[in-house]
Amino acid sequence: MGDYRIIEVKRSVFEDNNRDADRLRAQLKGEGTFLVNLMSSPGAGKTTTLKRTIAALRDEVRIGVMEADIDGEVDAAAIARAGAKAVQIHTGGMCHLDADMTRQGLGALGSADFDLVVLENVGNLVCPAEFDTGAWRNVMLLSVPEGDDKPLKYPLMFKNCQAVLVNKCDTLSVFDDFDCDRVKARIHARNPECAVFFVSAKTGEGFDAWLEWLRDEMKQFKTGEMEAPKHYDA
Amino acid sequence: MGDYRIIEVKRSVFEDNNRDADRLRAQLKGEGTFLVNLMSSPGAGKTTTLKRTIAALRDEVRIGVMEADIDGEVDAAAIARAGAKAVQIHTGGMCHLDADMTRQGLGALGSADFDLVVLENVGNLVCPAEFDTGAWRNVMLLSVPEGDDKPLKYPLMFKNCQAVLVNKCDTLSVFDDFDCDRVKARIHARNPECAVFFVSAKTGEGFDAWLEWLRDEMKQFKTGEMEAPKHYDA
Repeated sequence: MGDYRIIEVKRSVFEDNNRDADRLRAQLKGEGTFLVNLMSSPGAGKTTTLKRTIAALRDEVRIGVMEADIDGEVDAAAIARAGAKAVQIHTGGMCHLDADMTRQGLGALGSADFDLVVLENVGNLVCPAEFDTGAWRNVMLLSVPEGDDKPLKYPLMFKNCQAVLVNKCDTLSVFDDFDCDRVKARIHARNPECAVFFVSAKTGEGFDAWLEWLRDEMKQFKTGEMEAPKHYDA
Repeated sequence: MGDYRIIEVKRSVFEDNNRDADRLRAQLKGEGTFLVNLMSSPGAGKTTTLKRTIAALRDEVRIGVMEADIDGEVDAAAIARAGAKAVQIHTGGMCHLDADMTRQGLGALGSADFDLVVLENVGNLVCPAEFDTGAWRNVMLLSVPEGDDKPLKYPLMFKNCQAVLVNKCDTLSVFDDFDCDRVKARIHARNPECAVFFVSAKTGEGFDAWLEWLRDEMKQFKTGEMEAPKHYDA
């Protein structure tokens, strides 16, 4: 049947990409470059979170950023103003990045010059979750206005992340149907190991815990003790 | 729990989705079923908007709803409770619906029995914009917390819509960097013909203008005066 054949094509692409992502991860380990893949819906606050994270860490580590977006240069410009080196990756309408596209971005950035590189993935909860980019850690931003039901609707995203930042917590009084305990339980139902932080990138609330986690992960990576993240295709 | 079914759809076997979408549109015209494709980011308020729209129109027109989601049945159950017939479409991890998947959903719903069918597309601003579903009108929901820069970052979505509802306007005082004039100008820079409404699905603010537009469109469709929407592939 025609549709079966199409599904096979999709699978074989996944197999290649998974292997390619492992190759990229090994290369980054050799270089000592810790790559973090940051994912979220459009407008959840990736760039603002990144700017505050850069401001906190830029005296400790050398940070590079890859901004993946369909169009526009607003994010890369904002990051560059925050003081990190940034490249803008234009995906030409693609809804995700795979390992090879990530490799091209790292080449343009000059990844060996950085201790920490953050990939700001395309704003999308579906496709980016399916493709292993080769990152050592996958972090997802879920903003309060999106609602606490997102782990029910986008299971793969939550399964493939090692940390979730629940952002825009300064608006919890406005979005009073968002239940922090409930969202945490729903995330852990998908992924019991996932670290969960409640933050506001606007006010800085909750950032200490997130930065401590990130520093610990970087330390583990540097000592070679870090295990590669498990990637679920579905 | 209300009355709804769950169907599993498979990816299209048709190579030319645009042609297939035109065929589906012609079929819907023959049946007198006005199909609206509703798109947005995750958590922008599609289901709440739909529930309020159903409540306003259910005594005038027969309404059916197709809920496309990766997982979960929360939306179809909510719609069924609001009083419209709903089917839940499981896309098996796909990030969009094409015309043939839409046709499968319409078949399960029994589209000829309805004056208005709304397809709640997968929460995603990228892939759903690329695939013509065969709908007669494409409507996008942009929520205030996402920010007023979205027309810069997701141009195809804004090009392919005939109306944009800027939702969650009740939170404008919290998200005070969101500029309504600016977002309108940015939408019109992508698509000068696009109708723009500022609404709150939670409070009902701005719904009269949106409902009036929808009634006018349905009237045009019924009299056969409606032109098919232009679809841009990129």
